[in-house]
Amino acid sequence: MANVGESDKYLLNRHKESHFTAGEIVRDVIIGVSDGLTVPFALAAGLSGANASSSIILTAGIAEVAAGAISMGLGGYLAAKSEADHYTRELQREQEEIDTIPDTEAAEVAEILAEYGVEPHEYAPVVNALRKNPKAWLDFMMKFELGLEKPDPKRALQSAFTIAVAYILGGLVPLFPYMIIPVAQKAVVASVIVTILALLIFGYAKGYFTGSKPVWSALQTALIGAIASAAAFGMAKAVQG
Amino acid sequence: MANVGESDKYLLNRHKESHFTAGEIVRDVIIGVSDGLTVPFALAAGLSGANASSSIILTAGIAEVAAGAISMGLGGYLAAKSEADHYTRELQREQEEIDTIPDTEAAEVAEILAEYGVEPHEYAPVVNALRKNPKAWLDFMMKFELGLEKPDPKRALQSAFTIAVAYILGGLVPLFPYMIIPVAQKAVVASVIVTILALLIFGYAKGYFTGSKPVWSALQTALIGAIASAAAFGMAKAVQG
Repeated sequence: MANVGESDKYLLNRHKESHFTAGEIVRDVIIGVSDGLTVPFALAAGLSGANASSSIILTAGIAEVAAGAISMGLGGYLAAKSEADHYTRELQREQEEIDTIPDTEAAEVAEILAEYGVEPHEYAPVVNALRKNPKAWLDFMMKFELGLEKPDPKRALQSAFTIAVAYILGGLVPLFPYMIIPVAQKAVVASVIVTILALLIFGYAKGYFTGSKPVWSALQTALIGAIASAAAFGMAKAVQG
Repeated sequence: MANVGESDKYLLNRHKESHFTAGEIVRDVIIGVSDGLTVPFALAAGLSGANASSSIILTAGIAEVAAGAISMGLGGYLAAKSEADHYTRELQREQEEIDTIPDTEAAEVAEILAEYGVEPHEYAPVVNALRKNPKAWLDFMMKFELGLEKPDPKRALQSAFTIAVAYILGGLVPLFPYMIIPVAQKAVVASVIVTILALLIFGYAKGYFTGSKPVWSALQTALIGAIASAAAFGMAKAVQG
């Protein structure tokens, strides 16, 4: 019952693994939108608390969105890039270890399997099989010793772009009212209503996509926006004296 | 040579695994500081480009730091929290599968090892060993099938706090000149100098801690700050007309 015979193949096909794993693009969109909706919103609310005009609030808001999109986008790019570099370095290093100290690496495979209560006489054939197949052995070490997955080379740029665009789209929602309503004290009310609604909808979608309770996620997300803008409002008032 | 006998233990101890893996706290500090140094800096530079006074720039900057710290901190909290929830859900699910469809799960173990060119007669003993030890089998599936590590329960709060504090500390650097220099056009020059220096130092440290070239990392980090503030400056000027 322990080899991939016909019966197992049947079982494997019938049992579609549907464990949830948030796609990387979905994760990037979530990162960008949640900050984009929250920070410019809170900044604008804070400035209106300091009696700034719609025009200066809009200026600050647009400047923040530009800065945030670039900072998060390029930040995402560099993060994905260094992750890929890290993988390449570790791959070379592991390859060298397999070439130069194979007995030690074999002992590491043994150690990994021993952690799961597998006895030496039980895992010995597996360790020897890997030693006969250095390419597979290298993949095994990368995945099970270091827990590293081969990163997608296109990932870095895609991540940068996705986060930046998501941040801009999220950031324009709370700023829109200030574009059409010249009186900041009126614009801020519209901005709060529009943004809380957007946070609820976004939070719901986020919960749905990440497999947590959508309604709970919606409330949490809106609450963060509310707390952040309250803090910004308070700080702005404090600074203005 | 494939069991953890004395010789292997010796080899394992002598060969200290020094593969680099960025600590989670280091990663949180990097996330917080890099955005904290960049966004408030760019926002302040942008507003000074729109001829705002040091007082309004400081108000906007402080409001942004408060909003950003809360948004990123609580964001980090929820991210770590939902990661932990995700792990718990998958653990229960995997446990159920082991209880209800053990043959299918055993076939999955077989499939995982077969991917590395291990033959059925070689991995059969391992699969059977895991079947005899359901607890270890569960851990094996979590790590080898789903690639999930047991998250630290204290992680979520710690992450929130670390990111928020790092963001505030980073954000105060570019704002400091505006606190002591009332004329924005003079303060912005001091802010640019101080912040570019801070970005270079931070970027160097980041490179050092994440195992990439420090000097290269320092230049990249400073460049992001420069690009972000240039964009914010341009957008602010454009909005003001």
